[in-house]
Amino acid sequence: MSTSLHDDYARAGFGGQLPFGQRPALLVVDVVQAYLQPDSPLYAQGFVDALPANQRLVAAARAAGVPVIFTGVVYGAQGRDGGLFYRKVPALRCFLQGSPLGAIAPSLQPRPDEVVVLKQYASAFFGTSLAATLASQRIDSVLITGFSTSGCVRATALDALQHGFAPFVVREACGERDPGPHQANLFDLQAKYAEVIAEADALAHLAASA
Amino acid sequence: MSTSLHDDYARAGFGGQLPFGQRPALLVVDVVQAYLQPDSPLYAQGFVDALPANQRLVAAARAAGVPVIFTGVVYGAQGRDGGLFYRKVPALRCFLQGSPLGAIAPSLQPRPDEVVVLKQYASAFFGTSLAATLASQRIDSVLITGFSTSGCVRATALDALQHGFAPFVVREACGERDPGPHQANLFDLQAKYAEVIAEADALAHLAASA
Amino acid sequence: MSTSLHDDYARAGFGGQLPFGQRPALLVVDVVQAYLQPDSPLYAQGFVDALPANQRLVAAARAAGVPVIFTGVVYGAQGRDGGLFYRKVPALRCFLQGSPLGAIAPSLQPRPDEVVVLKQYASAFFGTSLAATLASQRIDSVLITGFSTSGCVRATALDALQHGFAPFVVREACGERDPGPHQANLFDLQAKYAEVIAEADALAHLAASA
Amino acid sequence: MSTSLHDDYARAGFGGQLPFGQRPALLVVDVVQAYLQPDSPLYAQGFVDALPANQRLVAAARAAGVPVIFTGVVYGAQGRDGGLFYRKVPALRCFLQGSPLGAIAPSLQPRPDEVVVLKQYASAFFGTSLAATLASQRIDSVLITGFSTSGCVRATALDALQHGFAPFVVREACGERDPGPHQANLFDLQAKYAEVIAEADALAHLAASA
Repeated sequence: MSTSLHDDYARAGFGGQLPFGQRPALLVVDVVQAYLQPDSPLYAQGFVDALPANQRLVAAARAAGVPVIFTGVVYGAQGRDGGLFYRKVPALRCFLQGSPLGAIAPSLQPRPDEVVVLKQYASAFFGTSLAATLASQRIDSVLITGFSTSGCVRATALDALQHGFAPFVVREACGERDPGPHQANLFDLQAKYAEVIAEADALAHLAASA
Repeated sequence: MSTSLHDDYARAGFGGQLPFGQRPALLVVDVVQAYLQPDSPLYAQGFVDALPANQRLVAAARAAGVPVIFTGVVYGAQGRDGGLFYRKVPALRCFLQGSPLGAIAPSLQPRPDEVVVLKQYASAFFGTSLAATLASQRIDSVLITGFSTSGCVRATALDALQHGFAPFVVREACGERDPGPHQANLFDLQAKYAEVIAEADALAHLAASA
Repeated sequence: MSTSLHDDYARAGFGGQLPFGQRPALLVVDVVQAYLQPDSPLYAQGFVDALPANQRLVAAARAAGVPVIFTGVVYGAQGRDGGLFYRKVPALRCFLQGSPLGAIAPSLQPRPDEVVVLKQYASAFFGTSLAATLASQRIDSVLITGFSTSGCVRATALDALQHGFAPFVVREACGERDPGPHQANLFDLQAKYAEVIAEADALAHLAASA
Repeated sequence: MSTSLHDDYARAGFGGQLPFGQRPALLVVDVVQAYLQPDSPLYAQGFVDALPANQRLVAAARAAGVPVIFTGVVYGAQGRDGGLFYRKVPALRCFLQGSPLGAIAPSLQPRPDEVVVLKQYASAFFGTSLAATLASQRIDSVLITGFSTSGCVRATALDALQHGFAPFVVREACGERDPGPHQANLFDLQAKYAEVIAEADALAHLAASA
């Protein structure tokens, strides 16, 4: 984005800064085979490229004792529980119950004590008990990573802010099919809803939370 | 409940009547083995007694082409996703992932095209995509049955009303451990949140919806 | 409620205990003129009787620096925004915008820095930003008081638990038209959703939070 | 957006089409003085330019008997009820209770029977009873207009889809400070969440709904 766009937004009163929380969680959004397997309709190189950062962040969170929460997508009843989203995005058929494309990336295998949120919509908070899980554990902020920047990551970061959990979106750990929407959405997120941070800063926050 | 209590509520302006909808669904709440198997901590005869009415209603809904939606309860991550509810009610441990007590009653086996909502809390609407499923199918009313009257049935009926789907609670198809809470909650529901109706009326509504 | 009912519930695995939180808020539900003015359809002596306990708790919370949040009810657009609840309970007409019956009790006048949540439904969490307000202030528990025990208090306490904020319902500060529903609902709340505590205990918790 | 980006998304299975509903509502998001008055920090010409289309659409909806719903933003308690959003976007101070910048544009003055949703967050569905209002009136689709495209319009359209109400975003009736975010967000909306339509098509839909 151009300098003048940043300046215009700053003058208008956007882009305040949220302080990092004292009880963070790492929220790994939809890092599933549908985006990573070359024969999947949703596959793109941009997702594969973001995988190593997710692996490093999950390892760092576990080492620091920071809760890791994973999300995935699943539809039953021939997609009836996907409502209008399932009708709008035909590619979501690859998340019908039983499809191997719905599996979380093997290199990020959730541990038995880590919450896996199965959702039907874009936001990890919509139609799930995620906000209740965070509040009941007194989590105050979430490091957000995953796929895709313009879709489930943005929707989840917006809802995190709305629900009262400060969202920190980790740039290198977010994947997208094309660089245009990736950059455009990171701009909107930083301006209005979240702190977009570098992986190195996220790792430093996690180490400091240990 | 005494006549005078009914009269007092009516004078105060409670107990209006909601008309039956044009696109109903049947919502079968938590008719699962945990309430029906004699060796389960949650078992009581009151639940077993309500099972046949559920069977008749499910059959009638299917015959009329009225959508049937089932709910169940499941916890992962050692109950972390159950938040404060899981801590308040130790009996909920019988819904940990993999427990046979979480299975829907075999006599009500959902069909592949019927939505099964897996929830972590009392209300079938809380932390689930149920409201979106109903709205996206243009459902306007729900016949509610299941277990328990004072718990998940009441919480679900309240939320159905709040979300804009007229709740019709079928008396004989709701089970409870003890008659006191059963009657007290049906009274509250009829006064403020729902129409409490007899199974015969529910069957007539379903036949008329065909 | 009888001893045997309590015993039966305890054997079944209900009635666990939630610890008091470290960052409580006091949530005063619908202590408004509609329940307190003798010429209002919703008036009953049971509400007037609970008012002094609310005054003492508000004073104690303010003295301890514990946030106080008030709720009220308001409908615009001739009640269209009240949906099915407004149709079910004709008495809710007394909360149409501009009605003096919607005003919070003068003896509890909110301060300019205290949040007032205006709601359209029974639960103070439904259709409001209350959960976000609590999470963003890192509140972990709520002392709940107000009107009526069987209605908005119970609905609010259930939703507090579901959203991850431990609910403590203060017995003497809750009002109801009739003693039957009052007791029946406190029983359900204690068994499944909340800690029902005495005013003296609530005052002690508040003093300890200073 | 480039042709190749469109093609890439289409191949991946995005961009299905939602049919227009049978019971639409017109949802006018935040067309308030804060965006229209030159001395407001949030003012931009892009908002003023979109006002006439909003006037035409409101008139057409009223003529067709299609419900019109307005949203606005208001904060009480010194912004405490704005949670993290209020902290992230300092410009939101212009919506503190009593500020004239919070008023809906005089040329769109809501009628007494039209619902006005006052919100604290970006999405008109978040922390409000809007979804319940739509469901209880059996609305199945929403024509969405207003300010800003990248902010409250997108957040509201996403949530409309998620809640089960088909969103139709009217291009010329949406305002934004800068053309880059305007176009980028319309692209995302059309690809994943909504139908982005021209004002002429919206007017035709409204006329056909009479």
